[in-house]
Amino acid sequence: MTSLTLHQDPRSGNCYKIVLTAALLAIPLAVRNYDIMQGETRTPDFLARVNANGRIPVLQDGDKFLPESNAACWYLAHGSALVPTERFAQADVLRWMFFEQYNHEPNVATLRFWLRFVGQANLSDLQRAQLPAKRAAGEAALKLMDDHLAASDWFVGSGATLADIALFAYTHVCEQGCFALDDYPAVTRWLARVRALPGFVPMEA
Amino acid sequence: MTSLTLHQDPRSGNCYKIVLTAALLAIPLAVRNYDIMQGETRTPDFLARVNANGRIPVLQDGDKFLPESNAACWYLAHGSALVPTERFAQADVLRWMFFEQYNHEPNVATLRFWLRFVGQANLSDLQRAQLPAKRAAGEAALKLMDDHLAASDWFVGSGATLADIALFAYTHVCEQGCFALDDYPAVTRWLARVRALPGFVPMEA
Repeated sequence: MTSLTLHQDPRSGNCYKIVLTAALLAIPLAVRNYDIMQGETRTPDFLARVNANGRIPVLQDGDKFLPESNAACWYLAHGSALVPTERFAQADVLRWMFFEQYNHEPNVATLRFWLRFVGQANLSDLQRAQLPAKRAAGEAALKLMDDHLAASDWFVGSGATLADIALFAYTHVCEQGCFALDDYPAVTRWLARVRALPGFVPMEA
Repeated sequence: MTSLTLHQDPRSGNCYKIVLTAALLAIPLAVRNYDIMQGETRTPDFLARVNANGRIPVLQDGDKFLPESNAACWYLAHGSALVPTERFAQADVLRWMFFEQYNHEPNVATLRFWLRFVGQANLSDLQRAQLPAKRAAGEAALKLMDDHLAASDWFVGSGATLADIALFAYTHVCEQGCFALDDYPAVTRWLARVRALPGFVPMEA
């Protein structure tokens, strides 16, 4: 790795995952901020140079650009204890990271975005119609996590991995999407465990 | 790895990814079939023993169970040429696999499921209201792939990786969701490249 720059919006949990991974591993990271509410990741220059998908985060290493938050975390954590080398454990970390992007983020993070940043009064009819299903799916994801964490301190093995970092990002701010952390006591205890990791940094926004 | 069993529904592209990965690597794989339309992955036994998330595919290795299609592919392909060892290339493979689960599958695969298996007449009002947005997002995902493949034969590097397998699964049957492959000529040429890989097996359903 040469000089690293994170293209981010500091309100995004997906961006925060990368900031937290870098902090836990003491990897220096420059940041360049964009306001997604102002369309700053949809400009012709951004689409041509940074990410044709029009999304942040993107991790830049020299002249190479890496979209997708969990892929960027993987890049940073390569060879560290956050990525187990044992075959099943490594795949199991990815299992939770794919669960995060498929079952958790589209529900828990989307409700936070809609309710805290867009505002309930500004939602489209289609967004409003999706609220109950996204609420139920987000609660199911948090319940699955709670059941898993009732029996183990970390998602995979006996210490923190990228699975914990990926799932911490939007879980620890889920109340901004009106999810009730009190309903998930094992999750709440695990959040404290993540916050106590050496090098931990809080989310900015 | 000991004896491997794939818990699957053969109509699922997510399951097919794992079958294809195993075939390309000549790894023997037993299968156990479930009918997701009949709720066979939501039974108490399935939830307790196979996957608390009530979903297939799940890859079983002895007494261990691994949900999430892309994680199962990663487990099978560990140490093979389908997973590059170089740091950026490996993360870039995951970048496309996360793109697949976040931007591609929820749109391209969901429309296939709704239109081919559920049937347009049986869709709920909420599903019907989501059709235009899912159509547009699926087309955007296919366009992004097409632009990338216009300049390179494979998603990452100079040969097939898990990025290609993950994206092949639902792309090659996207017309079942009424997406027009003719609109994506570079994707169409790449589909032929994947089909020509030694050991390739077609999807059953």
